[in-house]
Amino acid sequence: MGVDGADGRVPLGSLGALGEAAVLARILPRLAPAASALVGPGDDAAVLDAPDGRVVVTTDTLVEGPDFRTGWSSPYDLGWKAAAVNLADIAAMGAAPTALVVALAAPAATPAPHLEALADGLRDACDALAPGCGVVGGDLTVSPTFTVAVTALGDLGGRAPVLRSGARAGDAVALCGDLGLAALGLRLLVAEAVDPAGNPDAARAAAVRARHPREVEAQLRPHPPLAAGPGAAAFGATAMLDASDGLLLDARRLAAASGVRLDLRGSAVPPEIFGAGEDHALLACFPRGTGGGIAPLPDGFRPIGAVVPGKGVTVDGVAADERGGWDPYADWDGAR
Amino acid sequence: MGVDGADGRVPLGSLGALGEAAVLARILPRLAPAASALVGPGDDAAVLDAPDGRVVVTTDTLVEGPDFRTGWSSPYDLGWKAAAVNLADIAAMGAAPTALVVALAAPAATPAPHLEALADGLRDACDALAPGCGVVGGDLTVSPTFTVAVTALGDLGGRAPVLRSGARAGDAVALCGDLGLAALGLRLLVAEAVDPAGNPDAARAAAVRARHPREVEAQLRPHPPLAAGPGAAAFGATAMLDASDGLLLDARRLAAASGVRLDLRGSAVPPEIFGAGEDHALLACFPRGTGGGIAPLPDGFRPIGAVVPGKGVTVDGVAADERGGWDPYADWDGAR
Repeated sequence: MGVDGADGRVPLGSLGALGEAAVLARILPRLAPAASALVGPGDDAAVLDAPDGRVVVTTDTLVEGPDFRTGWSSPYDLGWKAAAVNLADIAAMGAAPTALVVALAAPAATPAPHLEALADGLRDACDALAPGCGVVGGDLTVSPTFTVAVTALGDLGGRAPVLRSGARAGDAVALCGDLGLAALGLRLLVAEAVDPAGNPDAARAAAVRARHPREVEAQLRPHPPLAAGPGAAAFGATAMLDASDGLLLDARRLAAASGVRLDLRGSAVPPEIFGAGEDHALLACFPRGTGGGIAPLPDGFRPIGAVVPGKGVTVDGVAADERGGWDPYADWDGAR
Repeated sequence: MGVDGADGRVPLGSLGALGEAAVLARILPRLAPAASALVGPGDDAAVLDAPDGRVVVTTDTLVEGPDFRTGWSSPYDLGWKAAAVNLADIAAMGAAPTALVVALAAPAATPAPHLEALADGLRDACDALAPGCGVVGGDLTVSPTFTVAVTALGDLGGRAPVLRSGARAGDAVALCGDLGLAALGLRLLVAEAVDPAGNPDAARAAAVRARHPREVEAQLRPHPPLAAGPGAAAFGATAMLDASDGLLLDARRLAAASGVRLDLRGSAVPPEIFGAGEDHALLACFPRGTGGGIAPLPDGFRPIGAVVPGKGVTVDGVAADERGGWDPYADWDGAR
């Protein structure tokens, strides 16, 4: 056994050449400590403050191929997005993110600076999206397939978690954040950022990104509206989820969990966003104001419909049954 | 796009043919709820009880190739081991495991029953090793490389966490659990459970396992002594870690973190176990009894040496500087 940099198979400066301990020594100083960390990276486990007496936890993975292409996503983008998608799930419970742990599996030939940039992306996403949150631990291993599995933890600050199952007929349906931008960004990359053989191409991706910064940024380096999650909870949201798999699919999940129908207004939700995933907008329901008037909504949310008796999702009262949303097994065929 | 079972490339009954939702519907009922779960799987995130006001968190990944071979590990073994190695890190902080989240990335052609068996292994490992602990959430995605990233959470029950850095000169060094068995199991599999081309072979592995059940079980389905972790903490352990990377490497880590030397007794630690990893024994230090006598040790721990001033690790006073332990980048060359 033994891998060294001299045989030409494992490049100098790569994970395989440096070894786990040396790579960790380069990554760990780049991570900012989490405000909640009582014990940070370096021991068998981290210890976090959980003053609420409860902890919120979620995990989401980015795999090279189905979830990202190294020709399009820089290592920094990848770290940012791996943090952001997990932070969004914490916010969708009405909680504030407190910490991340990161399980990273990378090919032995990966240059160490790529992992440093990935760590920078993780750190900067926490700083920008959820100040005080940071990476408190992780695992670094070798794999033929670049994989970033992040687990995020969060704190409810004394509030009840906002589940998918709490919507009641009469509630308003509201949305916070963009829908459709990330999918548009992906479509632009697929159409314009590939070489003649159809493979992702970094130079073309940079050009597409310069021409369409909002769309490509939404896809590669998303900025979900995290503060709106605890804000919605404090405002009395009855149900909420991270609408990251397409509005129609996620609205259907909320309707099913709550045993209600969601009737969306067609003028508020154009059909082209029904199946558009990866935006990490927050879909939430709020009690209608007294006297049956228009429901007051917290900052950042716009009304898109109403909760009514029944099941499923309708648009202006008409069934919206076409399949929508992203299923990694049904929608991606590169893993065979 | 679109993957179906009719084109012969994605087998009927596989993840690719069934899709994510159908596979989750088969897995989730097999998982026992965690006693601490206030909100279990199915929402954006889980919510756990954390009555201590702190939470312990760790993550560890098993990747096909460097960490397991499907010719040797059954899916049930894999689920068991993925749980056990993470539970051991929680115990090594002196905490009791409360919950797991599991990020699973599997090839589209993986038969759904394999994932059901993996879920059974996760559940049974929790039930056997840390009753009350269970899977509270996860993520299922497609990947060319079978990868199981588990994050474990734990509760300190009001005790201080036991770090690597607390050992003081005069402490006793003690060990709980087997050392060397898992490495012996791996050596037996490498030597005897391969086909003529050198590839892992399930039938030969079964025969090796029948002949050497303790060794192969220690490698494929480990039973780390989890209750000894909180036990050691309650007994006043000054430092502790999960000695899963080989005794010498892990003893060196504890010595470096604590700023002391660990002098091991040669009669208690034969050299052949110095570099033997994956046993998940607990290495701990305990204050010597009053009057300088033999330190009392909690149940399950045996004395293997003493903490003395200095640095590094010695055996009967002689420097033990040879490299020991497992580094996934330096020790595995299959990822290129």
